[in-house]
Amino acid sequence: MNALDDVIESFSRLPGIGKKSASRIAHFLLQQDESVCRRIAGDIAVLHEKIRPCKICGAYTEDEICAICANPMRDRHTLCIVEQPQDVQTIEATHEYNGLFHVLGGVIAPLEGIGPEQLHLQKIANRVREEGVTEIILATNPTVEGDTTALYLQRLLKPTGVTVTRLASGLPVGGDLEYADRLTLARSIRGRIPF
Amino acid sequence: MNALDDVIESFSRLPGIGKKSASRIAHFLLQQDESVCRRIAGDIAVLHEKIRPCKICGAYTEDEICAICANPMRDRHTLCIVEQPQDVQTIEATHEYNGLFHVLGGVIAPLEGIGPEQLHLQKIANRVREEGVTEIILATNPTVEGDTTALYLQRLLKPTGVTVTRLASGLPVGGDLEYADRLTLARSIRGRIPF
Repeated sequence: MNALDDVIESFSRLPGIGKKSASRIAHFLLQQDESVCRRIAGDIAVLHEKIRPCKICGAYTEDEICAICANPMRDRHTLCIVEQPQDVQTIEATHEYNGLFHVLGGVIAPLEGIGPEQLHLQKIANRVREEGVTEIILATNPTVEGDTTALYLQRLLKPTGVTVTRLASGLPVGGDLEYADRLTLARSIRGRIPF
Repeated sequence: MNALDDVIESFSRLPGIGKKSASRIAHFLLQQDESVCRRIAGDIAVLHEKIRPCKICGAYTEDEICAICANPMRDRHTLCIVEQPQDVQTIEATHEYNGLFHVLGGVIAPLEGIGPEQLHLQKIANRVREEGVTEIILATNPTVEGDTTALYLQRLLKPTGVTVTRLASGLPVGGDLEYADRLTLARSIRGRIPF
């Protein structure tokens, strides 16, 4: 094991990078100027130090409160519930949403021992009451766990009288009926909209 | 731009990693313990400091002379010429070769302004004379540039009387005639062997 093998080993533990890609990256780094390595190493080293969850919504930020929660131009009556901090960026990239977010940090997964208590779901009900939220958009993934969590939240929020919506599930844009799986197609039929 | 964007930007400049993979890796790193980041950052930071080309063959090593050149059990009469340092590892992984290596560090590519002079090809002729090499295996890639470089080396080495061989080019093992490209199939016919 030399320093080159260490870098290959480190990279091959990252998601989506196999042994061959890791080796290619390590050799690429060796062929670059030393400053490229120093910059990447520096960026990775300070990541945990600088980035933390927003005190209000749980998205990643360098400050106490994230840029979205701090922005007075955002619609404070709509709250979008997502599973992971990265989902906030994904939804932001659509430029379709102007409300606030709430990051669960996971989903209800009984097989992994994650119940509603671990996700601090009560916090959402509190936000609805205290911040005058009128619509909750459930944007958990369209998976068994995501659907379960959405259902749980819907029941939890019923007493508050808030409008609860769920992201539409159906055929991906540019897709083909022929290649859609049975479950997705069934959902797109059940969820059909007036045209 | 915050620290998270910096890491995503850094990763997306590496070969084979797009914006989405880079984002996935950055978020993965944030979810790991801080020590994981510290280790990766450390490994990358010392890469250039610790790794250098072997004084004899040009492969990457932590020492003056690489483990292959320093190994008295290797067959010192056979020399395998490769384009890049990583090719040494690729050939070693086959466990089919027990000779020494010589890394060119590139190929003859007139369009990019790389001629025989930039590759220090004369060094190989010197090694043949001084080290008693009896066979040279040309293991440059089966591309236009790799073939050109192989041809140039063959002519350069003719006066030394050394046996010059080239890696066989043809159908990949487990492949299918139907899916082989025309050039590869043509080469496999020209290079057919007694059976």
